[in-house]
Amino acid sequence: MQYEELAELGQQLRVDAVRAADAAGSGHPTSSMSAADLAAVLLAHHLRFDFDHPDHPGNDRLVLSKGHASPLLYALYRAAGAVDEEELLGYRTLGSRLEGHPTPRLPWVDTATGSLGQGLPVAVGMALAGQRLDRLPYRVYVLSGDSEMAEGSVWEAVEHAAYNHLDNLTLVVDVNRLGQRGPTRHEHDLDAYARRLHAFGWHTVEVDGHDVQAIDAAFAEARSTTRKPTAILARTRKGRGVEAVEDREGLHGKPLPDADEAIAELGGVRHTRVTVQAPPDGKVTTAVGDTTPAPPRYDPGDRVATRDAFGQALAAVGAARGRVVVLDAEVGDSTRAEVFAKEHPERYFECYIAEQQLVAGAVGLAARGYVPYAATFAAFLTRAHDFVRMAAVSRAGINLVGSHAGVAIGPDGPSQMGLEDIAMLRSVHGSTVLYPCDANQTARLTTAMADLDGIRYLRTSRGGTPVIYGPDEEFPVGGSKVLRRHDDDKVTIVAAGVTVHEALEAADRLAESGIRARVIDLYSVKPVDADTLNEAAGQTGCILTVEDHHPEGGIGDAVAEVFADGRPAPRMARLAVRNMPGSATPEEQLHAAGIDADSIAAAVTLLVERVVA
Amino acid sequence: MQYEELAELGQQLRVDAVRAADAAGSGHPTSSMSAADLAAVLLAHHLRFDFDHPDHPGNDRLVLSKGHASPLLYALYRAAGAVDEEELLGYRTLGSRLEGHPTPRLPWVDTATGSLGQGLPVAVGMALAGQRLDRLPYRVYVLSGDSEMAEGSVWEAVEHAAYNHLDNLTLVVDVNRLGQRGPTRHEHDLDAYARRLHAFGWHTVEVDGHDVQAIDAAFAEARSTTRKPTAILARTRKGRGVEAVEDREGLHGKPLPDADEAIAELGGVRHTRVTVQAPPDGKVTTAVGDTTPAPPRYDPGDRVATRDAFGQALAAVGAARGRVVVLDAEVGDSTRAEVFAKEHPERYFECYIAEQQLVAGAVGLAARGYVPYAATFAAFLTRAHDFVRMAAVSRAGINLVGSHAGVAIGPDGPSQMGLEDIAMLRSVHGSTVLYPCDANQTARLTTAMADLDGIRYLRTSRGGTPVIYGPDEEFPVGGSKVLRRHDDDKVTIVAAGVTVHEALEAADRLAESGIRARVIDLYSVKPVDADTLNEAAGQTGCILTVEDHHPEGGIGDAVAEVFADGRPAPRMARLAVRNMPGSATPEEQLHAAGIDADSIAAAVTLLVERVVA
Repeated sequence: MQYEELAELGQQLRVDAVRAADAAGSGHPTSSMSAADLAAVLLAHHLRFDFDHPDHPGNDRLVLSKGHASPLLYALYRAAGAVDEEELLGYRTLGSRLEGHPTPRLPWVDTATGSLGQGLPVAVGMALAGQRLDRLPYRVYVLSGDSEMAEGSVWEAVEHAAYNHLDNLTLVVDVNRLGQRGPTRHEHDLDAYARRLHAFGWHTVEVDGHDVQAIDAAFAEARSTTRKPTAILARTRKGRGVEAVEDREGLHGKPLPDADEAIAELGGVRHTRVTVQAPPDGKVTTAVGDTTPAPPRYDPGDRVATRDAFGQALAAVGAARGRVVVLDAEVGDSTRAEVFAKEHPERYFECYIAEQQLVAGAVGLAARGYVPYAATFAAFLTRAHDFVRMAAVSRAGINLVGSHAGVAIGPDGPSQMGLEDIAMLRSVHGSTVLYPCDANQTARLTTAMADLDGIRYLRTSRGGTPVIYGPDEEFPVGGSKVLRRHDDDKVTIVAAGVTVHEALEAADRLAESGIRARVIDLYSVKPVDADTLNEAAGQTGCILTVEDHHPEGGIGDAVAEVFADGRPAPRMARLAVRNMPGSATPEEQLHAAGIDADSIAAAVTLLVERVVA
Repeated sequence: MQYEELAELGQQLRVDAVRAADAAGSGHPTSSMSAADLAAVLLAHHLRFDFDHPDHPGNDRLVLSKGHASPLLYALYRAAGAVDEEELLGYRTLGSRLEGHPTPRLPWVDTATGSLGQGLPVAVGMALAGQRLDRLPYRVYVLSGDSEMAEGSVWEAVEHAAYNHLDNLTLVVDVNRLGQRGPTRHEHDLDAYARRLHAFGWHTVEVDGHDVQAIDAAFAEARSTTRKPTAILARTRKGRGVEAVEDREGLHGKPLPDADEAIAELGGVRHTRVTVQAPPDGKVTTAVGDTTPAPPRYDPGDRVATRDAFGQALAAVGAARGRVVVLDAEVGDSTRAEVFAKEHPERYFECYIAEQQLVAGAVGLAARGYVPYAATFAAFLTRAHDFVRMAAVSRAGINLVGSHAGVAIGPDGPSQMGLEDIAMLRSVHGSTVLYPCDANQTARLTTAMADLDGIRYLRTSRGGTPVIYGPDEEFPVGGSKVLRRHDDDKVTIVAAGVTVHEALEAADRLAESGIRARVIDLYSVKPVDADTLNEAAGQTGCILTVEDHHPEGGIGDAVAEVFADGRPAPRMARLAVRNMPGSATPEEQLHAAGIDADSIAAAVTLLVERVVA
């Protein structure tokens, strides 16, 4: 395209953004208009993408990090012939794929955006896939706002991209000077961004974001830059092209006051169809192997930490399946992900202490077809909560592993204890939450989670626990194990992880004094085994849950939800961590929290006496 | 002190760190030894602190961001005469204040650390207090590790500190080259850190971190630097002083293999007592006013968004109470925190789009005695989950406000919807969770939360809802309101926020067809009103919860916990957001999620039929 045509295309994108938001009665046209020339040049001259085959392995990737500028993205899809005018004007209506912020309901969108500062970190995962795994020359483009450069997650990604020499990654920052409530911190000071990015090792190009020739040259410069990612810093004007709104405050996230007038000012509706460059041929040949993993086997009676079993099982899954990759936040020696690192270093991604990049990297790798496991302390996964939440909106399939669960870690104290992780992961849409209590169970679940959909979470423990299951036992997701059962059971104790062993000890002690208690190992916290719990409720009439987690959102809540089906419910009680722990031994911690065998036995006795009384 | 004495003091701190970890059988002595000379010089020559009066307003602040180096901090307290040898050697034992990572159980610790990358962001809050509110010349020192510089939260703080010209803030980075599982990204490349910090506008000094004279000069340089924060980048060696461990991998977080030998090598146990400089006299005179707020009043029948009522009430609370401050993540126009900004600009802190800094800033301001309200979209508070969790460990009193709750926001789509926020905030230790449904209730709760302990959360809604309470109605925290009640109630509907209005409509419709349903407005989700729920359960036998939130960890779980007291429980059912929303109008969203009046009426009918059948 000639430069005049590119400028015209930019106007078309503006007009379409204005039209879409006007039809919807909401949306962010002014944020779309600032970036329209950048998008036009990218689409017409640089992007290599087969819109008919979004899964083409050679396709460049485009991540709209400033997801609120979705009208621009959808206008671009119309220009590419992928979306028609009718669909465009159905923006934000019930059932439309053209949501307020882009999601992978659209086949050309790899990752959902709309929580700012997430596009670049996820794109880093995609670019790593291209560089180290796919080994294909596709490029990853991120279109970002200037406001979101304040997010720390962006700087985790900036560091990670430069350190890994991701020259297949181009960040375009639409520096339109205006955030939501007023001017950004750096307004039009492009140098402020350039200095920071330079210091981290990026190549930068500063351009007038409305000069299509300069933009074209900047993209070419990015493509010819090696060993470094490039940031194109574009000075733009929000609402560009319509005087009533251009570069004015207070107009964020609102349709234009007079759309017809604006469209006329922009030169009217256009119907230019862009012929987008085809991607280069390419096939992923490096990720080989897809056989059935042989999980490690442990001898019942031995004492093994579930984190150890996880590490060993992970290495076995990796040996069998070439698309399994692992991400670490510089704690692989603690989570035991390092076992995988030693056997499969080419598929191990060290993210250093940057948990947002850890999870975002997993999302990016999943978008390229890999099966990522991202592991850190359960407590520190909270750092990436927003990324986990958005991963669910992205329909991403990722495995998260949190070690050092609960007060059972002992002397390190509360900052290191995962006590909210089950609540966090249960609340994520479509998630799976697994919490094994022994090594063989851990090995099986580590293997099984690879094939599930959505966000999968495995919670592991620091200290050793007795192996209580044989190595051939199976543990279906959504199941549970009844470990003690008697016709005369008066109470059912539901436990998981470390509390299973406390529950078994309590039940055995209680049996000696004539009180029979059923024990259920609820290793699958979500989905939960409603059938077994209902049966136990019917037969024992009383359920006691015991968990090394705060009382809210954990195992007690998971069990209670089973009985929220409108039918008569059993009596229930719950033991959980209600104190603020300090330092102490694991045994002292379990006792202080009231979740050890003594506490369980006392609670069961009380519950049984209450019924008798 | 002479430099020789300072070096000796450094050795004393090392010996004490070795002794403490050896006695405990766990801990991080090598991470303490690298920073011992930095700590010695700071304590003896620069820190102004009255250990007998930790609340002295003129005290400098010291934040040990690398919280795992707690033995160093406790050794420093011993050198200052604040902790004796016996207490030091009781490190990490049950009941000891000397926990594995520092917490404010120690009167000289302002904020808990141990989740890396949090010290600097919290310190920024303290430094802002000193600069803008207290207007006292205290300095805030942060001792940070090099590994944690990978956390994005650090760069949010770096940006924020420079932008605010916090020359009262000094960051000391103990660049010991070794992280937990191996070398850090930049190892001993001090320039790598200096370039980055410079680019953000910091003054930097690079020193040999074992040269006490150079360290002394660096602190002096930091104190004389104006208009910029200073970072002292210190090249150190992990395990410094003991050949068996110095600068060696694989020794993170472990007591020394031979403590006696190490102590001998370090020159033996010493008992130097440092006379720490007294803080300058000073009194906070700027935060005046502590009268009873007069919350805004709304007329029943009007339609007002709870976020609007929040903003207006916040301004009123600010007018009455001089220590109330507000933090915004560049969405004050949406959360309505901007109402406060207009009336009290000197107490309004714009954090831009950096939610971790938002919450950390609140924690820092709370540590200086202020009453912070930090507001953003409920969905985006997930970005700061780890900071909220740690704020609880810090025993911080902070108010968090999340707007745009649930699917009721309408067309913006799932990325903007708070659907996990109640789960997140309920699971935090000692938290309070409030979710008002009308403007007068919001105004009262906004006022009341200022006086609570711990983490307080207020959930507000985007769209207008009818005012259903009079302006003089009271809403005690831990209470609820019974809005429909009849002797013949067959079911109790428990709702909060937007679903209260749906529940009322459903109940009124059901009453017309002869089915009586009680309606409870559960505005206090935690603590929850067990008495009223128990009474309703006893009288109606069946409880239906309805919430604009995912089914896990929300109102359904909060209600279920009431009945986990071992006594017979009512029948229960719950309506919640189980779908993945797209874009649609608010009404369509509530309907699609099955939480509108139609859905409630249908569910009640089903529950009543089931009982009759």
